[in-house]
Amino acid sequence: MTDTADYPADDFYRDTTQATGWLTDEDLAVIRAQLPLVYVDAIPVRVDESGDVVAVGLLLRVNGQGVITRAVVSGRVMYHERIRDALLRHIEKDLGPVALPQVPPSPQPFTVAEYFPTPGITAYHDPRQHAVSLAYVVPVTGDCRPQQNALDLAWLTPEEACSDAVQAEMANGQGTLVKQAMAHVGRLI
Amino acid sequence: MTDTADYPADDFYRDTTQATGWLTDEDLAVIRAQLPLVYVDAIPVRVDESGDVVAVGLLLRVNGQGVITRAVVSGRVMYHERIRDALLRHIEKDLGPVALPQVPPSPQPFTVAEYFPTPGITAYHDPRQHAVSLAYVVPVTGDCRPQQNALDLAWLTPEEACSDAVQAEMANGQGTLVKQAMAHVGRLI
Amino acid sequence: MTDTADYPADDFYRDTTQATGWLTDEDLAVIRAQLPLVYVDAIPVRVDESGDVVAVGLLLRVNGQGVITRAVVSGRVMYHERIRDALLRHIEKDLGPVALPQVPPSPQPFTVAEYFPTPGITAYHDPRQHAVSLAYVVPVTGDCRPQQNALDLAWLTPEEACSDAVQAEMANGQGTLVKQAMAHVGRLI
Amino acid sequence: MTDTADYPADDFYRDTTQATGWLTDEDLAVIRAQLPLVYVDAIPVRVDESGDVVAVGLLLRVNGQGVITRAVVSGRVMYHERIRDALLRHIEKDLGPVALPQVPPSPQPFTVAEYFPTPGITAYHDPRQHAVSLAYVVPVTGDCRPQQNALDLAWLTPEEACSDAVQAEMANGQGTLVKQAMAHVGRLI
Repeated sequence: MTDTADYPADDFYRDTTQATGWLTDEDLAVIRAQLPLVYVDAIPVRVDESGDVVAVGLLLRVNGQGVITRAVVSGRVMYHERIRDALLRHIEKDLGPVALPQVPPSPQPFTVAEYFPTPGITAYHDPRQHAVSLAYVVPVTGDCRPQQNALDLAWLTPEEACSDAVQAEMANGQGTLVKQAMAHVGRLI
Repeated sequence: MTDTADYPADDFYRDTTQATGWLTDEDLAVIRAQLPLVYVDAIPVRVDESGDVVAVGLLLRVNGQGVITRAVVSGRVMYHERIRDALLRHIEKDLGPVALPQVPPSPQPFTVAEYFPTPGITAYHDPRQHAVSLAYVVPVTGDCRPQQNALDLAWLTPEEACSDAVQAEMANGQGTLVKQAMAHVGRLI
Repeated sequence: MTDTADYPADDFYRDTTQATGWLTDEDLAVIRAQLPLVYVDAIPVRVDESGDVVAVGLLLRVNGQGVITRAVVSGRVMYHERIRDALLRHIEKDLGPVALPQVPPSPQPFTVAEYFPTPGITAYHDPRQHAVSLAYVVPVTGDCRPQQNALDLAWLTPEEACSDAVQAEMANGQGTLVKQAMAHVGRLI
Repeated sequence: MTDTADYPADDFYRDTTQATGWLTDEDLAVIRAQLPLVYVDAIPVRVDESGDVVAVGLLLRVNGQGVITRAVVSGRVMYHERIRDALLRHIEKDLGPVALPQVPPSPQPFTVAEYFPTPGITAYHDPRQHAVSLAYVVPVTGDCRPQQNALDLAWLTPEEACSDAVQAEMANGQGTLVKQAMAHVGRLI
């Protein structure tokens, strides 16, 4: 589907048809233009034995124009799904089944990223829809194997993840989101 | 509309028809059964000069069975609306135009209340829908005049708001939400 | 030392003499009457695979009057010690060396407990001193063996930990702190 | 006192002698080398009617070398003083008596800045002492008049406050702290 190829895969269509069967793409296109959708963003990190963040995991993809982009784990919360289950599902979808994520005990996100279809209202932008995304830092301790449409998962230091070069490879405000996550864990430079 | 009379007014139908015109109640009933909706919950408080919470504002309503219920400010986030604008809109709707709310500078909520149509999955329940609600404590400094279907706005001490008697008058887990808010501001007993 | 026997062990004296050698008990008694001390409180929890809290670990002790008391992990931050290292040190001290705690990646505590020598200023009280304590929920995944002066570590459900019976066994406002922690993780009843 | 001239005024000596009378500078020098001190950092901000941060207030000072420096409001928490009272006292001390600060209702800071006498352990550094500082974003609505040793209070946009030029004028990691505050309020670029 060409028009979604440029954005971080969020399996909107796949989720919905799996979950509901009869809800058509046309129905969903209508909904997307009427209501904000609930999303989760997960910033995968490696921590040392004292819990200090030492690396950030970013997914590497090639977009529709053949350009390399980096992204965090992101996706929709489905009907009747808990936030923490959505986090687990999207982390498993993107990092594989043995990433061993430690979903935080508290539902309090470090921030709420409001992705608007109109650029400039917030730092986040999604041309497809209005998404309200609850953002969490999630330590992963297992073996991460990028799945689906990701070429690779690169572990960067907090400094590298906040560098201009890496920030330029992130779209839709996810670079800002990574910097916010590093600010939250005390690793912003 | 009998089936909504028991729940805190969240103007779902009114909002949508105002905003979109052509989206029918039938469309919305379909959406409500397919997707989680984005909500905000605001706990109105009075603070002293040092910012310490001295009172909690609860709306008093009579439900469809003629029973008195208490509720916090709650409502849907509309398409293309920022969280903070939704907070302002619902506070004005419920507390009137001169409540002078101080919406927090940070989008980080104190908790996320996941209202499920099935009771028992979380502490929150909404038989009409699956709502994911970002919850904020909002100091108000002006004159509050309950609007619409509320009989009154009562200012209770944190202790009173957490008491068994008052908790019993709150439905759908909002009593728990008030206790969580008081825990967050350091005023839980 | 009789006068500390009633309070959760916080190894004030032991810490200081180990760290500094020459600082006498008299010096410390002077400091304690002059300055607030930096503390950490850790609420040890067991989480399920989705990160949801299923149990709270409380230390069981007998106080100077022969009464059973329950407490969370608590202790002083030493000179030149990071908050996360103080958390690790006190958790190891109280739960043993193989508790495998997951110290949160962010330094943002869920609350700050201000223990005053005068009761009633806040919910927390410490007759010995003014302590400002940063409080964290810390999942532990390993084998916990109470050390030092604790008789046992009991794992309670969130409901049990917030019950009147258990709350009555906690001193100095730590019962309130446990309820605040459960509110923060969405498990307050 | 030459050795404090380079650092944001935190009135350590003045506070203590006022509060305790008999505690000498020598005593304090000893304490400072033995224990971490409790501090608060306040980032003064202007917000618009929806609570969105539009400006950050930074104090302008000339340090011992005649160099212009910028700083946030910062200072020690005194014995038997609540965090929120320390915030009010230091804001009044630095911004004057009619700044009308809105101290947040919750004691949860947006971060904890650990200032170590040894550089490089955290992003924060204080050659005089080990300070553990609870950091808050504080909207001020009144008229701010820099007091004491500050030349001016400059209101900068979030973008300006995070710019390299302004960051270079902030010492001891306070530039990082301002960026963390802007990340917390969703205004980091």
